[in-house]
Amino acid sequence: MTQENQPSAADSDRDEPRPRITVLSDGPDGPDSLARLREHADVQVAHDEASLRAALPGSRILLVTDFRTESLEAAWDAADSLEWVHAASAGVDQLMFDALVDSNIPVTNAQGIFDRCIAEYVLGAILLFAKDTRNNIRYQQERRWVHRDTESIRDKRVLVVGAGSIGRQIGALCKAVGMHVSGIARRARDADEVFEAVYAAADIDTHLGDADYVVVAAPLTDATEGWFDAPRFAAMATHARFINIGRGPIVVTDALVDALTRGEIAGAALDVFEQEPLPSEHPLWTMDNVLMSAHMAGDFIGWRDALMQQFLDNLAHWRAGEPLFNEVSKRHGYAPGGA
Amino acid sequence: MTQENQPSAADSDRDEPRPRITVLSDGPDGPDSLARLREHADVQVAHDEASLRAALPGSRILLVTDFRTESLEAAWDAADSLEWVHAASAGVDQLMFDALVDSNIPVTNAQGIFDRCIAEYVLGAILLFAKDTRNNIRYQQERRWVHRDTESIRDKRVLVVGAGSIGRQIGALCKAVGMHVSGIARRARDADEVFEAVYAAADIDTHLGDADYVVVAAPLTDATEGWFDAPRFAAMATHARFINIGRGPIVVTDALVDALTRGEIAGAALDVFEQEPLPSEHPLWTMDNVLMSAHMAGDFIGWRDALMQQFLDNLAHWRAGEPLFNEVSKRHGYAPGGA
Repeated sequence: MTQENQPSAADSDRDEPRPRITVLSDGPDGPDSLARLREHADVQVAHDEASLRAALPGSRILLVTDFRTESLEAAWDAADSLEWVHAASAGVDQLMFDALVDSNIPVTNAQGIFDRCIAEYVLGAILLFAKDTRNNIRYQQERRWVHRDTESIRDKRVLVVGAGSIGRQIGALCKAVGMHVSGIARRARDADEVFEAVYAAADIDTHLGDADYVVVAAPLTDATEGWFDAPRFAAMATHARFINIGRGPIVVTDALVDALTRGEIAGAALDVFEQEPLPSEHPLWTMDNVLMSAHMAGDFIGWRDALMQQFLDNLAHWRAGEPLFNEVSKRHGYAPGGA
Repeated sequence: MTQENQPSAADSDRDEPRPRITVLSDGPDGPDSLARLREHADVQVAHDEASLRAALPGSRILLVTDFRTESLEAAWDAADSLEWVHAASAGVDQLMFDALVDSNIPVTNAQGIFDRCIAEYVLGAILLFAKDTRNNIRYQQERRWVHRDTESIRDKRVLVVGAGSIGRQIGALCKAVGMHVSGIARRARDADEVFEAVYAAADIDTHLGDADYVVVAAPLTDATEGWFDAPRFAAMATHARFINIGRGPIVVTDALVDALTRGEIAGAALDVFEQEPLPSEHPLWTMDNVLMSAHMAGDFIGWRDALMQQFLDNLAHWRAGEPLFNEVSKRHGYAPGGA
């Protein structure tokens, strides 16, 4: 790849048959769906700072499929021709370094792709808590027939923290099965067909105690980092369950562990963590009121192809000189349209 | 109680202040909610054949809260004044002995009480399979971070076998979250707002193979006993999951175990069993593609009070000489209105 480190003639002609695109991936081979992209572009694959430095010069577009990377900031000075950065992920927190934020290069993301499956994951977690399914599995392992009465989810109250694209889909599924859904957004707004109310983030403490289920679907930004701390957990109902499918660092994990241990809340379902993978010695692994998964809530079978298709759709916009869709507000750190 | 074994003057006057009611319960004290009934009636509690023989003479109404009992048939000749039998359960299979079926005594059941929570249980089981939650729990126990891609339930096909009151509620919840729902009933009927199609039971083999999830919500009758046997499981898709919240004997359990072992179907969620409690040596306990619970899918917190309230509502009908609701077709073994 280093042999190819010659800037192409970067001009504003979007009709050139094969624009140079760098793909920043988590492996040297890039995603399986790369063959489809090669039909449309001169593709350079990078997976670390060195290969990124080699690939970026002359690249007009950067496709980031590894949302955990920090190598882009390190190699940023090699980006001499970039016109567009697409993050094939819902969260773009790792991309929001100053040089990119301050540039006039638009950033788009994968808004919409993961919404539905994340919402299904959340509804599954809610039903798992309500039906005491963890104990069904435990009693099955112990070969014990233990009848219990369990909870209905009908008319239970869900507070979706982060009322954007993913939060709205979560709310829609919860409403469809007869739950009451409220949201937290940066600013309060009127009720709509999903949210019975949308409160301002500044007023969250007034509403946390009313929820049977608190679901974090917010992006990680300076404003949301460490948002769920000891006082917030203490403000929740003792029977409440806490579900995080947003980003791990929105939660002060030690405070969550303490709240679960002390019974300040009743349970947690966590798909994201401050440190991923979660270290094997972490106390969360052994808590039986915690359901954990490996940052996979939105990853339905076929998601890689769906992400590539979405990028190709946006690439068609770019080629045609049309506005890109899913453009992220770099100041706020997420695509507008809700949160 | 034997001292009270004097028939009251059984007449047709439904205005008598305190009609004699026998409660056949699974314990000598009867249900906790009995105090409410005593406000309205002269209550005799029985829990086996002997106490039933003592209580029945003179009782105009029998309230059966133990749906597993066979003692009623044994003590039936002592029922000299019965005008109405209410089963505080959805299934009435144990009550359908010849002498009661052949009598002109109406039987009512608890249709409606358990529907919603059973439907929630089914949706929870579907999401558990789709999201591979059993493996999430297993990996958590092993402290292993294992990312997988999982299934969406959107547009998946659910076949509800038994399209009555419970089956309809199951279908309604599944449809609400974007699944396609068909039903099996005794006779085919037109599509409606829940079921995209309702096929005749005689045609079930034509449709089993199309379903991603097969849910048994049928009553136990002569026609449904042993319905799901080896050929029926073989007819299902290998990726299909089988969910039984109806009655255990509708399924040939050995055939189900074989089908799960051979991979003819992908998984099963079972709330009911041919033998309850399931013996601890049964192979189902240790199958990791099986989710089990102790005949509790419909038993939400507060169900006993809800059952008593439903009986009291019907008692008000009886007192007023109005038609009872939820009357069971003794010939078919369930309350009409669908299945």
